[in-house]
Amino acid sequence: MEFEESGIGEECGVFGCVAAGEWPTQLEVAQVLTLGLVALQHRGQESAGIVTSNGASPPTYTTHKGMGLVNTAFSPEALLKLRYGNLGICHTRYSTTGISELQNCQPFVVDTLHGKIAVAHNGELVNAHALRKKVMRHGVGLSTGSDSELITQLLAFTPPMEELDSPDWVARIKNLMTETPTSYSLLVMFKDVIYAVRDPYGNRPLCIGRLVPISKLHTTGIQIMEDTEGWVVSSESCSFQSIGAKYYREVLPGEIVQISRHGVKTLSVVPRPEGDLPAFCIFEYVYFARPDSIFEGQMVYTVRQRCGRQLAIEAPTDVDVVSTVPESATPAALGYAQQSGLPYIEVLCKNRYVGRTFIQPNTRLRQLGVAKKFGALTDNFAGKRVVLIDDSIVRGNTISPIIKLLKEAGATEVHIRVASPPIKFPCYMGINIPTKEELIANKPEFQDIAGYIGADSVKYLTVEGLVSAVQEGIASLQEKDNISSCNKSSRKVGHCTACLTGKYPVELEW
Amino acid sequence: MEFEESGIGEECGVFGCVAAGEWPTQLEVAQVLTLGLVALQHRGQESAGIVTSNGASPPTYTTHKGMGLVNTAFSPEALLKLRYGNLGICHTRYSTTGISELQNCQPFVVDTLHGKIAVAHNGELVNAHALRKKVMRHGVGLSTGSDSELITQLLAFTPPMEELDSPDWVARIKNLMTETPTSYSLLVMFKDVIYAVRDPYGNRPLCIGRLVPISKLHTTGIQIMEDTEGWVVSSESCSFQSIGAKYYREVLPGEIVQISRHGVKTLSVVPRPEGDLPAFCIFEYVYFARPDSIFEGQMVYTVRQRCGRQLAIEAPTDVDVVSTVPESATPAALGYAQQSGLPYIEVLCKNRYVGRTFIQPNTRLRQLGVAKKFGALTDNFAGKRVVLIDDSIVRGNTISPIIKLLKEAGATEVHIRVASPPIKFPCYMGINIPTKEELIANKPEFQDIAGYIGADSVKYLTVEGLVSAVQEGIASLQEKDNISSCNKSSRKVGHCTACLTGKYPVELEW
Amino acid sequence: MEFEESGIGEECGVFGCVAAGEWPTQLEVAQVLTLGLVALQHRGQESAGIVTSNGASPPTYTTHKGMGLVNTAFSPEALLKLRYGNLGICHTRYSTTGISELQNCQPFVVDTLHGKIAVAHNGELVNAHALRKKVMRHGVGLSTGSDSELITQLLAFTPPMEELDSPDWVARIKNLMTETPTSYSLLVMFKDVIYAVRDPYGNRPLCIGRLVPISKLHTTGIQIMEDTEGWVVSSESCSFQSIGAKYYREVLPGEIVQISRHGVKTLSVVPRPEGDLPAFCIFEYVYFARPDSIFEGQMVYTVRQRCGRQLAIEAPTDVDVVSTVPESATPAALGYAQQSGLPYIEVLCKNRYVGRTFIQPNTRLRQLGVAKKFGALTDNFAGKRVVLIDDSIVRGNTISPIIKLLKEAGATEVHIRVASPPIKFPCYMGINIPTKEELIANKPEFQDIAGYIGADSVKYLTVEGLVSAVQEGIASLQEKDNISSCNKSSRKVGHCTACLTGKYPVELEW
Amino acid sequence: MEFEESGIGEECGVFGCVAAGEWPTQLEVAQVLTLGLVALQHRGQESAGIVTSNGASPPTYTTHKGMGLVNTAFSPEALLKLRYGNLGICHTRYSTTGISELQNCQPFVVDTLHGKIAVAHNGELVNAHALRKKVMRHGVGLSTGSDSELITQLLAFTPPMEELDSPDWVARIKNLMTETPTSYSLLVMFKDVIYAVRDPYGNRPLCIGRLVPISKLHTTGIQIMEDTEGWVVSSESCSFQSIGAKYYREVLPGEIVQISRHGVKTLSVVPRPEGDLPAFCIFEYVYFARPDSIFEGQMVYTVRQRCGRQLAIEAPTDVDVVSTVPESATPAALGYAQQSGLPYIEVLCKNRYVGRTFIQPNTRLRQLGVAKKFGALTDNFAGKRVVLIDDSIVRGNTISPIIKLLKEAGATEVHIRVASPPIKFPCYMGINIPTKEELIANKPEFQDIAGYIGADSVKYLTVEGLVSAVQEGIASLQEKDNISSCNKSSRKVGHCTACLTGKYPVELEW
Repeated sequence: MEFEESGIGEECGVFGCVAAGEWPTQLEVAQVLTLGLVALQHRGQESAGIVTSNGASPPTYTTHKGMGLVNTAFSPEALLKLRYGNLGICHTRYSTTGISELQNCQPFVVDTLHGKIAVAHNGELVNAHALRKKVMRHGVGLSTGSDSELITQLLAFTPPMEELDSPDWVARIKNLMTETPTSYSLLVMFKDVIYAVRDPYGNRPLCIGRLVPISKLHTTGIQIMEDTEGWVVSSESCSFQSIGAKYYREVLPGEIVQISRHGVKTLSVVPRPEGDLPAFCIFEYVYFARPDSIFEGQMVYTVRQRCGRQLAIEAPTDVDVVSTVPESATPAALGYAQQSGLPYIEVLCKNRYVGRTFIQPNTRLRQLGVAKKFGALTDNFAGKRVVLIDDSIVRGNTISPIIKLLKEAGATEVHIRVASPPIKFPCYMGINIPTKEELIANKPEFQDIAGYIGADSVKYLTVEGLVSAVQEGIASLQEKDNISSCNKSSRKVGHCTACLTGKYPVELEW
Repeated sequence: MEFEESGIGEECGVFGCVAAGEWPTQLEVAQVLTLGLVALQHRGQESAGIVTSNGASPPTYTTHKGMGLVNTAFSPEALLKLRYGNLGICHTRYSTTGISELQNCQPFVVDTLHGKIAVAHNGELVNAHALRKKVMRHGVGLSTGSDSELITQLLAFTPPMEELDSPDWVARIKNLMTETPTSYSLLVMFKDVIYAVRDPYGNRPLCIGRLVPISKLHTTGIQIMEDTEGWVVSSESCSFQSIGAKYYREVLPGEIVQISRHGVKTLSVVPRPEGDLPAFCIFEYVYFARPDSIFEGQMVYTVRQRCGRQLAIEAPTDVDVVSTVPESATPAALGYAQQSGLPYIEVLCKNRYVGRTFIQPNTRLRQLGVAKKFGALTDNFAGKRVVLIDDSIVRGNTISPIIKLLKEAGATEVHIRVASPPIKFPCYMGINIPTKEELIANKPEFQDIAGYIGADSVKYLTVEGLVSAVQEGIASLQEKDNISSCNKSSRKVGHCTACLTGKYPVELEW
Repeated sequence: MEFEESGIGEECGVFGCVAAGEWPTQLEVAQVLTLGLVALQHRGQESAGIVTSNGASPPTYTTHKGMGLVNTAFSPEALLKLRYGNLGICHTRYSTTGISELQNCQPFVVDTLHGKIAVAHNGELVNAHALRKKVMRHGVGLSTGSDSELITQLLAFTPPMEELDSPDWVARIKNLMTETPTSYSLLVMFKDVIYAVRDPYGNRPLCIGRLVPISKLHTTGIQIMEDTEGWVVSSESCSFQSIGAKYYREVLPGEIVQISRHGVKTLSVVPRPEGDLPAFCIFEYVYFARPDSIFEGQMVYTVRQRCGRQLAIEAPTDVDVVSTVPESATPAALGYAQQSGLPYIEVLCKNRYVGRTFIQPNTRLRQLGVAKKFGALTDNFAGKRVVLIDDSIVRGNTISPIIKLLKEAGATEVHIRVASPPIKFPCYMGINIPTKEELIANKPEFQDIAGYIGADSVKYLTVEGLVSAVQEGIASLQEKDNISSCNKSSRKVGHCTACLTGKYPVELEW
Repeated sequence: MEFEESGIGEECGVFGCVAAGEWPTQLEVAQVLTLGLVALQHRGQESAGIVTSNGASPPTYTTHKGMGLVNTAFSPEALLKLRYGNLGICHTRYSTTGISELQNCQPFVVDTLHGKIAVAHNGELVNAHALRKKVMRHGVGLSTGSDSELITQLLAFTPPMEELDSPDWVARIKNLMTETPTSYSLLVMFKDVIYAVRDPYGNRPLCIGRLVPISKLHTTGIQIMEDTEGWVVSSESCSFQSIGAKYYREVLPGEIVQISRHGVKTLSVVPRPEGDLPAFCIFEYVYFARPDSIFEGQMVYTVRQRCGRQLAIEAPTDVDVVSTVPESATPAALGYAQQSGLPYIEVLCKNRYVGRTFIQPNTRLRQLGVAKKFGALTDNFAGKRVVLIDDSIVRGNTISPIIKLLKEAGATEVHIRVASPPIKFPCYMGINIPTKEELIANKPEFQDIAGYIGADSVKYLTVEGLVSAVQEGIASLQEKDNISSCNKSSRKVGHCTACLTGKYPVELEW
């Protein structure tokens, strides 16, 4: 038996919520967390976990974790169990290591001399191996292979804890940040506070939203802070709409933000080494993020559309129609169509019920591959020349049967235009990419990629084209930005393109 | 706790497969059935069932049924159990009665004097009540409320069975067809044969495909019958692509087709009453069917696009952009855009992971409704006037929060254009429609529907417009049709519009 | 992988309850049914089902069925669903056919012209095959292989139903009883009444109990009928204690009893053919029934003890101690000890947590067999000669490793005495017995059974000894019986010993 | 909804196995572990876990844990996963803290600088609170509340680890034993060795067995060590029989035993403080252990029987018959009968299928309580005076309805004799006892306990009587003991009676 292949994948999404004002509040924190997590489901489908705290002294934490999608992992009973929380953090996970067990689920909760802390982590520590050695040399046994446990133990043991003093979590977090440069967007919950932390390179996204009264949600005027019902923090802003929150601002690279019932406060901004630029993962724009999310002041959809326009400039085609591999390539396809003046049509219809189907190997059905996922909209393109826009080609084994499908259904030519450059290098910062050998861009067949996949021509966006499509919007934003003044002055622009160029933001031996 | 609302829904999909040639064959019939069923999943998500027969004398039948989606209901173990079949039928179901239990799952298998028969049914018998009485008066106890059991018992008892004679199933099926005019597309499996039956009004779809060797699938030349690896029969042709089958032809209204290892043979065509037209459900075009399916020689997508064009003619708007409620309204929206010359953009992004989420009643989150399903692509339309195309408005409670979402995100005007007429009447022929009172078109608020749902204007396609958009393609087809000559001569055109007009194809007291 | 062997097994238990007085009552009928069924769990562990009726006109029936033990099959949610019943019947099942699926679960409910009936059945129709033909020749399709469905359809079609008349169920039941002589104990629920039916040979047990107010349960004085809270009917009286019911009386062979809110009424007693004696299954005494159940006025435990005494008379031994294969042989062992004057000790300790354990074949552990089920109480018998009493030896593969275990632990001699005669013939009346070839009594090895199983000697109770041990108590009862006067006069004594003697109560070609 | 009450309960069982000779061996270690664990199931039913190691350098560990009984937690798939182990440890658990989650399951596995260790623990550290503080002060975060994690982290951090040296686990274990005096029986697996450790007070049991070839299992002669197929270590010897192992010896109080493929070796015996006696839990004899287990050279059953005899001497009764509350009190009842000369009979029949049944509160059925668990064997005792032997009375709410049951069924007098003294004090060493307030012996009603529970008289065994019944067998053993010479010389006799006397073996502030 064999399952569907998967290409590249995001590893995790994190989300947190603190109810504002007097506790207990009317805010159904567990429900907000669940819905927030559902909106981040595209970042990880393997397991989900929520920890809530009532915020009392000492606090009561309630934890629920489960395998599978959020809606599977959280039954009504589980939500009932969590409902007394006044704040909480949660996590959705995709395993990179292949070890997919409940015990690896986040958030990770441990008891320390000062009480319990809960940690949710998106990213991958570049120096995890050395840090594990260090922690174990100190005499700590590690029960999982996850970076989250490692981070939690690092937070627990340095500087040494003194029973009588109150804990200085900020010092501990800053210490952690000196031990490891990237990549992490972290939520640390302690009693009645969430610390939201982004690594100095800002490699993984993290942003803050404000829960406003529903009655005032659909007004467009100025809203005063007194209306705030709570604060949320999330890997992506796409989760705000579904819970009635307004986008507030990004957490800056290196910033430690304290979120409490009293509001949002910057505690520290840990700098990068002199001369280093930020290194926000450019693939969040290209592929991972939901199109309605906002990074660096611009909507992901808009960036993808610009990539499509740029692609039309860099790699025009003489065809009859432009189309998309649904659904992620659609913004780029529409951008390509607008720039080129060619008509945009749909050529494929997606079966939204296709999931993991058990297909016996060595049968005729194995050879049909992608056909059970897509249906050809034959009459739309029979007898026409098609340029098909895809967002990325990883292994090359998905696009090939699509091209066959279109040709068999009557397309006279099929040209492929890819709205991102070829992926050639592994990611050590939280993205699950096939091994170097599996990447089509590293195979001999890449020399005649068009022939290999059966296309009439194949062209990719250049790295320069991608970077300019991404950064163009940020530039224009900086002029008109009036949302978060704190962002404007300190913003430097820089993106991690390591998987495309091999240039990693930090030395890997770090 | 409350779950997502659902609007109108198809009740069922049926699918069958017979391996050609000598048995046992290399064709993995159970796998073909499973994949065929996955492709019909949009027609019913509540339960699934497969029955295979080895076709021997006497035959061994193997049955597996399960609740939920096909991929949930059929584990690898279940498929192993079914794998020795040389033919089989299967069914996917959506319950209209609210009784959602395994025992109502189809196919229905019963033992008769002549051996076991298996029946899978799509549709709803208009005179089910009277037929139940008749069967029970004969002394038969009915263990479920399903029409399928009723059909099976009707097939079993008339004419009386004689142990020594071989059964004349065709006579029994014809007798059944005289007892009930509509609506049914039926698959009846007996030993080594599948009988595919469509009611005289052709109310529900049914078509036949031919499994060709994969190596010859992607050639476009003429294929000879010797290449046939098997025959499939399906509610919709969209299932053919995913199993390597070629569209062969529709089952005609009233036709009884025998499918065996030797091929496809028409056994009888039961006529309609003099003067009656066919009554193929027009909502299969509008809403239910997958866009890549072919009915009456035309692709569903194309019909929907024509509806959009017609709508642009009937109900133009002075706006900046055209958009869609994804995904089903997209063909109509593209048609509207092409006809009107307005630019097509995307305004909503769908969270494909939203499923049933448990939301406590009476909370702020309840009020957010649809927001967890759609994200607004703000930058695409902020400051613009939008005409939003929807395929149908049933209760009116989904479109309303979408309009709020768009306005809140900056749309200056939102006009709604609906690519079908208002639904006003119940369906008694297999479609699950809310009660008359729940339908927005029958509520007082319909007088000011735009005000009620918060739109700047609302307009519907006319019944005439819809019918002409549907039939225009058939007409053009009849001239160029070279696929199924048997269809051409006998084809009369007619569609059931009962839910829109109250004109039912047969008297309901039948 | 291989599972534990099982020897002979009862097929089913049935139970019913009707609340007395005005409805709705305070009696929690669904709970009474569940607990009653739990007490019959030893009669079938494969699936369980309950159907309740609110008794209204027309009635609402609620059904729940599930695989496994009662406590597994009935969740709190299922019980909530059933809780509005004022009467109900239930069933626990052990499959003889190997087809273990939810659809074969009883009670079987069907809709007839007069409304729904529910049927629960314990037994096996000796002429099932001929009856199936008859039903199918009438034009009824049978959806399962179970006798219950067959009975239900037989009840439904003869005599023919007339819509306007009220149904004469008693006539239908009597008609059924003329069609099939044995074996069945039946509960038929229709609207507000349960018909309790026992076949003319009384092959399977059935008895009636009276629910009394808990406050009066532990008084020993006379109780008046006005105190009755409800009536229950059960395969065995052992279920009465756990629900607060008092034993009322047995249903007589051939009797049709109507149980309603108004009480218990005999409607008819269908006679046996002239000269035939009753044929109550003697193995209910020997093995199947719970020891605290009462049949024919005597406690099962007492009969087993008498079998032990008789065995001591028929087959004495010169040993030091008497012991038992726990737990079912303990009454016989104590009887043997009392009769012989030898001390009774325990030699085996049972691991009550042993269930189905997955053991790979061909390993050393396979050879250990029974050892994981029993532990030897070494110090109790080391250096002693033991006579071990077993209730029956079916295949001979359980007793053999027990003897090895005892010898290895130090027993100097192990003699086996079996408190029933050898089983040699199949049962066609509801008991699951291994095939004739599998029965040790039919194997060549039976000639030297002691050598084969490793015992120092093996002796069985004679058929005459068993029958006299069973019937001796009935005789004494008839003199002092003051419980059910209706029983006394009409009681004739007779038992089915077919599995021991090959003499079946009715001709099998019937 | 309410579940069955539970009284006192053991917390855990541990089991380990090492295959002897060259690896990979033919010994199916995972199966041995599973069956061994099944035999310890009475010590914990909440969860089960197995860790196997292939013993290679570095080793591969495989872990499987699950909730529920062993047979539920370990599917065939799980066993397949574990099958390559050459050694392994396992654990079955009953939660005392009420936190019943998979993450608390043992064995606990952590990665250290020297590799992974796995720990399984039976007992409860008397100074757990102080040790937690100490570990956390060192900077270790603890992810569960379990002592096992605490032990594991203590083993990991003292003395400090050095990457280059090989680990001195014995020093670490000895260090742990200086940190905490009791109570623990521990299995620590590291690569290719299991360390079996018992605390200096020997509070929890632990013993070693030898796997012999099945062919030689049932011989009684001398067996040479070369026949050894592997070594097992277990909380109780009752698990040996079911896997084909012979009892070898107990682990001594304070002993650290190394079990490897080469055999069993004592590494160290950590002494108690001068003057302290051993403190083996006396309730292992009274209640927890399986009767066929051997502690201190005597069979548990024999001790219970002696308790019954002693009880007959201390508390005789003038009655007609002696009986038992099955099944645990049966040895004591037989002892009482032998000593008193009264006949032993059975008065109760246990429904072995009663499990957790959902009973709604405030109903008549609630009041029936125990009746669904036991049936009265009426005819055995009607009109007689009964002395009923119970092993212990904890809360007093189980025995009371049993007495009612017997009286209602006709017993003229019911006297209760308890084969252990009243439980008055909490246990801090691994036994789950109700709170002091819940114990019947601490309630005012205890003054008239007979009246309170409805008995004609109630008497308990004295502490002195219990201790002498336990220790009498050990004394006699020491003279004839020829099994484990190493035991004989060093054995001192002493038992923990803290729950009866309040005298704890160590100061609780330790």
